[in-house]
Amino acid sequence: MTANAAERVQHEGLRAKIMSAEQAASFIKDGMNVGISGFTGAGYPKAVPAALAKQMEEAHERGEQFTIGMLTGASTAADCDGVLAQAKGVHFRTPFQSDPTLRNSINAGEVNYVDMHLSHVEQQVRFGFYGKMDVALIEITGILPDGRIIPSMGVGTNNEWMKAADKIILEVNSRQHILLEGMHDIHPDIGTPPNRKPIPLEKPDGRIGSPYFDIDLSKVVAVVVTDLPDRNSKFADPDENSKRIASQIIDFFSHEVKAGRLPANLLPLQSGVGNVANAVLAGLQDSPFENLYGYTEVLQDGMLDLILNGKMVSASATALSFSPEALQRFNDNIESLRSKIILRPQEVTNHPELIRRLGVIGMNAMIEADIFGNVNSTHVMGTRMMNGIGGSGDFTRNAFWSFFVSPSVAKDGKISCIVPMVSHHDHTEHDVMFIVTEQGMADLRGKAPRQRAKLIIENCAHPDYRDMLRDYLDRAEKAGGLHTPHMLNEALSWHQRFVETGDMRVK
Amino acid sequence: MTANAAERVQHEGLRAKIMSAEQAASFIKDGMNVGISGFTGAGYPKAVPAALAKQMEEAHERGEQFTIGMLTGASTAADCDGVLAQAKGVHFRTPFQSDPTLRNSINAGEVNYVDMHLSHVEQQVRFGFYGKMDVALIEITGILPDGRIIPSMGVGTNNEWMKAADKIILEVNSRQHILLEGMHDIHPDIGTPPNRKPIPLEKPDGRIGSPYFDIDLSKVVAVVVTDLPDRNSKFADPDENSKRIASQIIDFFSHEVKAGRLPANLLPLQSGVGNVANAVLAGLQDSPFENLYGYTEVLQDGMLDLILNGKMVSASATALSFSPEALQRFNDNIESLRSKIILRPQEVTNHPELIRRLGVIGMNAMIEADIFGNVNSTHVMGTRMMNGIGGSGDFTRNAFWSFFVSPSVAKDGKISCIVPMVSHHDHTEHDVMFIVTEQGMADLRGKAPRQRAKLIIENCAHPDYRDMLRDYLDRAEKAGGLHTPHMLNEALSWHQRFVETGDMRVK
Repeated sequence: MTANAAERVQHEGLRAKIMSAEQAASFIKDGMNVGISGFTGAGYPKAVPAALAKQMEEAHERGEQFTIGMLTGASTAADCDGVLAQAKGVHFRTPFQSDPTLRNSINAGEVNYVDMHLSHVEQQVRFGFYGKMDVALIEITGILPDGRIIPSMGVGTNNEWMKAADKIILEVNSRQHILLEGMHDIHPDIGTPPNRKPIPLEKPDGRIGSPYFDIDLSKVVAVVVTDLPDRNSKFADPDENSKRIASQIIDFFSHEVKAGRLPANLLPLQSGVGNVANAVLAGLQDSPFENLYGYTEVLQDGMLDLILNGKMVSASATALSFSPEALQRFNDNIESLRSKIILRPQEVTNHPELIRRLGVIGMNAMIEADIFGNVNSTHVMGTRMMNGIGGSGDFTRNAFWSFFVSPSVAKDGKISCIVPMVSHHDHTEHDVMFIVTEQGMADLRGKAPRQRAKLIIENCAHPDYRDMLRDYLDRAEKAGGLHTPHMLNEALSWHQRFVETGDMRVK
Repeated sequence: MTANAAERVQHEGLRAKIMSAEQAASFIKDGMNVGISGFTGAGYPKAVPAALAKQMEEAHERGEQFTIGMLTGASTAADCDGVLAQAKGVHFRTPFQSDPTLRNSINAGEVNYVDMHLSHVEQQVRFGFYGKMDVALIEITGILPDGRIIPSMGVGTNNEWMKAADKIILEVNSRQHILLEGMHDIHPDIGTPPNRKPIPLEKPDGRIGSPYFDIDLSKVVAVVVTDLPDRNSKFADPDENSKRIASQIIDFFSHEVKAGRLPANLLPLQSGVGNVANAVLAGLQDSPFENLYGYTEVLQDGMLDLILNGKMVSASATALSFSPEALQRFNDNIESLRSKIILRPQEVTNHPELIRRLGVIGMNAMIEADIFGNVNSTHVMGTRMMNGIGGSGDFTRNAFWSFFVSPSVAKDGKISCIVPMVSHHDHTEHDVMFIVTEQGMADLRGKAPRQRAKLIIENCAHPDYRDMLRDYLDRAEKAGGLHTPHMLNEALSWHQRFVETGDMRVK
């Protein structure tokens, strides 16, 4: 045991349970449901999954079956989702993933992947929808002498997984900064009907729980000590398209503040994962807005910098997912950041009750939108899973404003992100308020489908595709029902053409 | 002034504003946004709309423009939506309708209809998304001497419309039972972010507001006295298919109670509008369940009878929409029902915060579902509006369980309600938990798309269509991505075939 580990595992009884990743992994057996920590590459276990994957591969070589049902907070990384998928060790996976190896397994039909709203998963486990959870495998920052647990950079579903599971395996990772202690706000849980109470959070930076997980220590069967970094994916610097998208949103904010329909410091901001969403936050650095608040799912580089630069008062999230450079800035400033960032369970950060009460401004990336404002966040050409819906539905349905952002084209113009009909529907016309591309913004509020179509085509579509879209709408209007004009034999033909020719444009 | 009117308009100042429907209608001018009462044929104004429609027609004959933007709670009836659509007097309509004349105008492209979640409409008016509301035209039961207002059989959006509008026209309808007084629970409003509080309702039959509307009396420009019945549509008696759907749901309830995953008195029940949903409630009459609670949007015959027969303790709703016979039973028993039925604004009955907290069991009708569990609630063959999404999204997204019910075929078997891909998406795979037809039930919880497809085809589809669906899935699986197998050039071909040949079956 290293000095670091001794420092981090302060409870005598749990210190006696320190063992190797291989020994710990052996508590996990074929067919088990395993609740694993991890949210957007933060706070996932980094040693036991590899050991488990090895044991799975050995079992498979012996001709034995060895797969698990795997539930997390959200995505993990190559050394968790990746190694387990590589070992063909996952038969069921929920609620979100973004790993290339696992994605391939899902699209090859080898893994049953249930793509769920992130606010649903903890309560559905609690309700018993998934049967028994056998083991919880959770990365943490440390254990206090009395057994209370300091969470990691990702809270996610950890609290619920440790309550629900029969056995608990803890990975104590000394790479998680010890000063994370106190940044968390672990609301015990939001309960089971019919005996639920209002969630008493009234401000984005309110606190309603404890800084620690309070677990049944008798369920802990293993403690594994690690010293390994989180995924820390690099961000692309905002490109021209992202900057144009950001500036339109920020101009709109200014307009609405001037009209008295939005407070001068806006409303709490949610930003989805990825480069474009991150660019909007970067754009706010140079905006006139001050005293901003964040109420989001994942806090990334853009929001961190808003806090560091004094533009944002505080932010609430369930995970911190930084580039290596941002992680350095976070660690360098953790003393001052500790009071400004609050990490909560995802059933709190993503709860419709709170998102609607607080009036969150939701900004999420999309794969494509159609001319009527339906959005596809998950599927490539209608059949292949990219990542998953994540929290985008939780925020979109309940936001004060819901924005969806994307460059207007992909693959050097061969794919239009504005299509006649999306090839998969994750967010319907009833929920999507604004579509923004580098070409412009469509404000869909209070607009009927045909009005929306004209706005989206003229404001958001790439010029290369506008005539094709106008032609589709024009012919659809002549074909039949005029509420939502479509030609059903042609509605998905752009995707089909891309599949067949590699280009949505007609040659 | 009749004796009845004198009795109902007890405030001196407002009594002085009593006038004819024609005089009252003249406050409404071309281009105005008018907030009108009415929810599922209950509590809509019955005199002023006809007078207004006449004035519109006269203006049109003079070559003048005269149309309004019309916002309601939900659907009204022929003497409100119908006459205004007939007069070509509506250019904008939200959030829900079910009138044949208006529906035709919408599908002819004459009316811009925005089909919205019912929990969104009040707050979006309050947020200023729709600009100014000029006039509120609201049916009520009576006015107390101090000016407080006794609401009608439909609360809907009335509270917000009277707050938001510059001018108020009241229709005092003596056909609304005077003993409705005290049945309402008008929460002032759920506010505007960032200063919203938790909604303090913890039980379906809790009370958090006043029995009266408390309005700015100086805005009342006209009081019109009427004595006219609500729509009171007749229900069909439950047919064999409806009974089979109901019995499967009830069997499932029993199973889950036995397994300890559901309280013995279930959880608060929501039931959508229509014959099939009503049949499920009728089925509960003969079930073993006692001490039920309702937390629904519209209370119809089935739920009324559960209360009258002592099976249901109480029900919360925003409107009462009865057949003529049920209305008689309601009126005959109103003394005892007054404490058991609570009528609230729709932003409370449909609020995600409350639906999720209470753990409501949502049961809604659908037009069609696809093999992956997406549901179309609104569009016929993808292009023509039927009614609208109503509250089905509010409940489905936040329910403990979300059921969608339909007979497996329509039009003598020419339409399958289970299709390869729905022609319009209102509820996505992420939200739909159970599909039930007379053929059987598919429990989609925790199932990946291909697992769902097999369950839906084998359990829910009509035998006439099973082979066709199996064949589609089989070929789609061979065609490409195996997460959500589709053939995009064929996914909507069943609808196209129906449009072309009048039958989804291949001849």
